[in-house]
Amino acid sequence: LKKKKLYEGKTKKNFGTDNEAHLVMEFKDDVIVSDDGKKKSIKGKGEICNELSGYLFQYMESYHIQTHFMRTLSEREMLVKNLDMIPIEIVVRNIAADKLTKQFNVVEGKELECPITEFYLKEKESQDSMINIDHIVSFGHATSDEMYTIQRTASKINAILKDFFRRRRLRLVDVRLEFGRYKGKLLLGDELSPNTCRLWELSTGERYEDEHVLQAARGSAETYQELRDRILKSI
Amino acid sequence: LKKKKLYEGKTKKNFGTDNEAHLVMEFKDDVIVSDDGKKKSIKGKGEICNELSGYLFQYMESYHIQTHFMRTLSEREMLVKNLDMIPIEIVVRNIAADKLTKQFNVVEGKELECPITEFYLKEKESQDSMINIDHIVSFGHATSDEMYTIQRTASKINAILKDFFRRRRLRLVDVRLEFGRYKGKLLLGDELSPNTCRLWELSTGERYEDEHVLQAARGSAETYQELRDRILKSI
Repeated sequence: LKKKKLYEGKTKKNFGTDNEAHLVMEFKDDVIVSDDGKKKSIKGKGEICNELSGYLFQYMESYHIQTHFMRTLSEREMLVKNLDMIPIEIVVRNIAADKLTKQFNVVEGKELECPITEFYLKEKESQDSMINIDHIVSFGHATSDEMYTIQRTASKINAILKDFFRRRRLRLVDVRLEFGRYKGKLLLGDELSPNTCRLWELSTGERYEDEHVLQAARGSAETYQELRDRILKSI
Repeated sequence: LKKKKLYEGKTKKNFGTDNEAHLVMEFKDDVIVSDDGKKKSIKGKGEICNELSGYLFQYMESYHIQTHFMRTLSEREMLVKNLDMIPIEIVVRNIAADKLTKQFNVVEGKELECPITEFYLKEKESQDSMINIDHIVSFGHATSDEMYTIQRTASKINAILKDFFRRRRLRLVDVRLEFGRYKGKLLLGDELSPNTCRLWELSTGERYEDEHVLQAARGSAETYQELRDRILKSI
């Protein structure tokens, strides 16, 4: 089934299959820690992200959000629809962190009155640049109708996820989403996992982000394993 | 009439007046050339920008775009309404230059199919950062209704100016605008001149931008004087 590797990113590899319309997505354990660019590994994280993504994609489908997820193939692999990806990363922020604190001096952890949506052009060589819908349309990455749908869908996904995690006593600080075209429709692609959902503990503020998890006293594998158990516990 | 200096920027100084609702805006000849940060002067440019801004603000008013302009006071000064400025610079682009070429590798001079609007947070210490309407509203700089009006008005101003300059065989590459509140209304503030309108010669591509004008063989004062004459010539 699995054929040539088509793509390798920070957290995943994509492989072609016998059917051109489908891909195998394989999750890696590697972690690229942002500060010094060193590669580290968190044992079992690939499996957890694969499992959580599969679960959350199905959860999205139950809310009529269409995704590329077809089925889980193995502990680290899922079968997905082969999307014509729009090279834009959509970030929806609920709580100030990252760019908002670094560039705009917002106090970290501040709850935003309304979510902020940002768009980044995914670039191979350089750091992703923030752009707006006018740029995206002008550069031909998507039509303005597509961007309208993407913005609305991203906002809906964020609202569903925020509520989902809140019930598990986790704050969804921000979420990164990617979309692609498949047979005339826009589907949610990429993954839905701690790699793309920035999660903080509601009570203690503990951060489920690789750089923090790796620094914490607790073992990083255990931390993600516990997080997985909490997320998958039916509530 | 003219009282304490309230503000000094790259191209202008603002002074208070006897009436708190009014300001005197004085145009400077200084030019800050971006490359090496050196200050140079283009003799007479302040007068030209004062005259052109006054003319173009009145031209805008004739299209029912409200501006802060009240009247020209002297060769370098105009009386304006004292706006509660929104600390955002709106850039409307018609032709690729500047950020589009430097950051997004668009070919310089490419005519954009639709104008691109960008928003920058004006910052005292650091370089202005590009932001979007979600940020502006979230940070409390303007309401989303205000931003809706600003975006529409900016687009209208750009269309009027583009056409105005086109008739004078000049291309409006991009224009930078600022707005402020005055007695419950949003008015166009700042200036409308070669300082804020990037103008290229339609036929030869000659650039009426300080760094290019200063490098050209012709005297920079003469270049701007000729540009002034062309712009003010009734067509």
